[in-house]
Amino acid sequence: MKKLIDSAMKRIECDLLLRGAMVFNAFTGITEEKDIAVISGKIAAVGKGYRGAREIDCSGLYALPGLIDSHIHVESCMLSPEAFASLALLHGTTAIVADPHEIVNVCGVQGAEYISEAFSRVRLGESPVLDVYMQLPSCVPATPFETSGAKIGGKETEQELARPLFYGLGEMMNVPAVLGAEDECLQKLSAAKCEGKIVDGHAPALSGEGLNAYACAGIATDHESLTAEECTQKIAAGLYCQLRNGSSARNIQENCRAVNAYNYRRFLLCSDDRTAADLSKYGLMDDAVKKAVACGVPANQAICMATLNAAECYKLKGKGALAAGYDADIVFVTDLKEFCVKRVIKEGELAVEDGKILFPIKERYLPDCVKSTVRIKEIGEKDFMLSVKSGKARALCVLPRSIVTKEAIVSVAEEDGDVCLTGTDCNKIAVVERHFASGNIGLGLVKGYGLRGGAIGITVAHDSHNLVILGDNNRDMARVAQLLKEAGGGMALVNGTREEVFPLDIAGLMSSASAREVIACTSRMNALAREMGVKECYEPFMTLAFLALPVIPALKVTDKGLFDSEKFAFINTEVKEEKA
Amino acid sequence: MKKLIDSAMKRIECDLLLRGAMVFNAFTGITEEKDIAVISGKIAAVGKGYRGAREIDCSGLYALPGLIDSHIHVESCMLSPEAFASLALLHGTTAIVADPHEIVNVCGVQGAEYISEAFSRVRLGESPVLDVYMQLPSCVPATPFETSGAKIGGKETEQELARPLFYGLGEMMNVPAVLGAEDECLQKLSAAKCEGKIVDGHAPALSGEGLNAYACAGIATDHESLTAEECTQKIAAGLYCQLRNGSSARNIQENCRAVNAYNYRRFLLCSDDRTAADLSKYGLMDDAVKKAVACGVPANQAICMATLNAAECYKLKGKGALAAGYDADIVFVTDLKEFCVKRVIKEGELAVEDGKILFPIKERYLPDCVKSTVRIKEIGEKDFMLSVKSGKARALCVLPRSIVTKEAIVSVAEEDGDVCLTGTDCNKIAVVERHFASGNIGLGLVKGYGLRGGAIGITVAHDSHNLVILGDNNRDMARVAQLLKEAGGGMALVNGTREEVFPLDIAGLMSSASAREVIACTSRMNALAREMGVKECYEPFMTLAFLALPVIPALKVTDKGLFDSEKFAFINTEVKEEKA
Repeated sequence: MKKLIDSAMKRIECDLLLRGAMVFNAFTGITEEKDIAVISGKIAAVGKGYRGAREIDCSGLYALPGLIDSHIHVESCMLSPEAFASLALLHGTTAIVADPHEIVNVCGVQGAEYISEAFSRVRLGESPVLDVYMQLPSCVPATPFETSGAKIGGKETEQELARPLFYGLGEMMNVPAVLGAEDECLQKLSAAKCEGKIVDGHAPALSGEGLNAYACAGIATDHESLTAEECTQKIAAGLYCQLRNGSSARNIQENCRAVNAYNYRRFLLCSDDRTAADLSKYGLMDDAVKKAVACGVPANQAICMATLNAAECYKLKGKGALAAGYDADIVFVTDLKEFCVKRVIKEGELAVEDGKILFPIKERYLPDCVKSTVRIKEIGEKDFMLSVKSGKARALCVLPRSIVTKEAIVSVAEEDGDVCLTGTDCNKIAVVERHFASGNIGLGLVKGYGLRGGAIGITVAHDSHNLVILGDNNRDMARVAQLLKEAGGGMALVNGTREEVFPLDIAGLMSSASAREVIACTSRMNALAREMGVKECYEPFMTLAFLALPVIPALKVTDKGLFDSEKFAFINTEVKEEKA
Repeated sequence: MKKLIDSAMKRIECDLLLRGAMVFNAFTGITEEKDIAVISGKIAAVGKGYRGAREIDCSGLYALPGLIDSHIHVESCMLSPEAFASLALLHGTTAIVADPHEIVNVCGVQGAEYISEAFSRVRLGESPVLDVYMQLPSCVPATPFETSGAKIGGKETEQELARPLFYGLGEMMNVPAVLGAEDECLQKLSAAKCEGKIVDGHAPALSGEGLNAYACAGIATDHESLTAEECTQKIAAGLYCQLRNGSSARNIQENCRAVNAYNYRRFLLCSDDRTAADLSKYGLMDDAVKKAVACGVPANQAICMATLNAAECYKLKGKGALAAGYDADIVFVTDLKEFCVKRVIKEGELAVEDGKILFPIKERYLPDCVKSTVRIKEIGEKDFMLSVKSGKARALCVLPRSIVTKEAIVSVAEEDGDVCLTGTDCNKIAVVERHFASGNIGLGLVKGYGLRGGAIGITVAHDSHNLVILGDNNRDMARVAQLLKEAGGGMALVNGTREEVFPLDIAGLMSSASAREVIACTSRMNALAREMGVKECYEPFMTLAFLALPVIPALKVTDKGLFDSEKFAFINTEVKEEKA
């Protein structure tokens, strides 16, 4: 503190002086030309007349506080934390609230420890390049209707939340358990309250008494609003509303309409799930701010959502503003419309310059716990047989650019005890349990996906990350299962005789390859799937990954069967004739 | 939590239903007709269709969150905490951030313990009627230039801040020590940082590098801005700006001009110092909100400053909003312009109805530590002699409705080694040390006060609360000292043969009498002083109380002598001829 004050008072020279940028002030919303004096990784002063041991001319650029992604599952980009950190920094995101929900559902708390350790190894000077505020996943498993690789109950939550590793409790997706005031759920929520740690929410379409109850549970945020009106209701209930700019799901455009000058302080930005390709091409919070501005949100409000608001909501000390005493996490952009990132200073160190990262990436950290996580029982063609005697079946109808499905009733014939897909626009979907080799397999039909002549599969399958396979014949589906088992997880595709696999060697969720390679391989896999007929409006593999997510409406498949997430119960694929 | 959720979900009946008020939502700024369901002291729901074991019709009223005074020295009202709590509640203030700077300067930390204990005894159901967030005074003594009753150094600050009793560190008035990065000051600031506790500021006219340094020190608030421009600068530096609606000092009207739709979140309201009469007649935060609205601040922003903003700044859990899960501290007012308080609910209990308090006030708590605190050495007329041989003297020139003074050079004659006041518009002021009977006495001249034919004196004298006596002759001044000694502190007046004393039996700062009596007595004392010629633009006794406050510009008197607060050094009353 002494050094900082001495530097602010000009008694000592600062380490670094950033000269002449248009500095955005998150508190006033005003952008003015100023110099930023930095010492020991912190801002000593924003003003004029300072000198630095090193000086960088920043004229012509806008200086923003390091951007904060208030809710992200890093695993969704399929990149290692090391590769993710580089891309995030390149795009001006210097802090994330990470919910390692995916990897913890596979590896347990060790998965979170791995993410944390991997991020902490990407350093610049004395500090990690990316500040990671880790949430303890609240729903492992997400529901009792599926088999995940781990279980974190009430007692474990109490123990884990007492650790400094965990900053808060991750998104509470089990809305019925909250509204039902179920014991174990309350035990988790109370543990967070007791530790003074924040709880994230996840409550699509919740309103009225349910929303009151959800707020009573102490849940602080939500990123699932489907409409602007829903945002306003949630804000009224005291929740921070996170505008989501994800790859699979986005509500930022629609929900921006709820923002006004009075309530903008209650909005945050987040990505939730972001592919490596989107991250590389469009960015992360830079893209979210840009989208908000394009939707008509004033730039100062939009930037504030990704900076000060996030810091306030999550109580991130030293983050979210460019002012004396704050961490010197500074993003320089060319303008306040496109938000092209030219330079990033992280805790006083030059981290990014002109699209190049300036920090070393060492070898990937790959502990045993995240390796060889695909354990399945011997599986054959007949395991994929699905009987629909009545000729009428429920199918998951996928909606373009959404993770929500709706139920469709389709007419299908049966042949030798198995549904016949020929002549229909249906595929078969199978979810194969992959943590304990239990042999569990859930089957269902998917309408309108378009795939023909083979099968595709992936071990990324929210939330339990069992193996999800979609195809039009049992043989190729069984082969996909076999390939994924051998690869230790990944994406696989079988097209008659052609077989392709892209391994996800980290928990079957992420690849230890470079970002470039991951983007190229996933793109290639998607293109190959596309050649097999998957319609343009669906991202072939990532859409698949959400078809096993039972907390999202309406119809999903888990390793235990077809699930109606509105009734919150299993249901038969076969629609039986109603008796008179 | 279970009960709250069950109640929100309408599975169980709530304790209390407040029907049909126009409910102000601090998050959205919108006021809508809703019911508020309360259980176990908390809001279970804001909505419709709820039922309560008890229901109160609130139609025609506006429901606001309990108002929060973000910075107050309770001692300044001269009321016991018990009497203060009643008046605060009557006026809709349900929480205060209290800085017991005055009593701690007299009694040490025991003074804060007394305040806390006295407040906690005023209860309604299971909870105190007033939530008191106690700050540990940071400047005891305020400066080395005066003698206070206690000293809280760096080490003591570390120890005390570790106690749950203290919520944060009180206003850091020693700006030079902060800017100078002085060891003991940094030790105090670091202790607060270490404990994660907030530090309040006090930095009139600070800007530029000094403001940067002050922010580097981790100081979170300021209530001393003299202009709207100064507010904007402090907000830009990351400080919360407290608009002050005190009795002696006010900046709310001027500084309201700095408020806009973007930055309103960074403003709070406070009273700082408030007399019992103002508190009773005009109110506390109700009056502050009313003033802000009268100055053109939109009502939703003004209310937010006294509710959500304060709760956010100080991280007051469960306070600042009317939403599910929040404490049921609810103020019902007749309109959003006059803010007349009709009803107050405190943690679910009806505390005030139609101007009447509904909670019991037990006997005053009066521990020994706050009694008999006036200890002075034998004092006589000759102790008040002030020599000004040159015929030219510096005088404190009091400014109307301000605690700032300016220096005036006056021509005065000397007679028998003492300044002769006859024919001048000057009074003599004496500050007599009263904690250790050291015999210290500081003398000075006050210009333009108007008092004639006697002396007045008071043991409330910021910040060290020595005895301040003002008069036009030494005999009456000495007699005032004697009277105050005998009374154990208070206000005293001698007018030739007439002698009047109003005792302040609590640390010489506050009276254990009823609010009504305190108001009547102080009013009477002021009227009597007025009869002695004190000009209309000065409040006779309270103006006096600030003349010994060396941290405020420009010229003040302490028990150690005449002090120039701009040069931060003692200075002679006598102006010597400059040598050629």
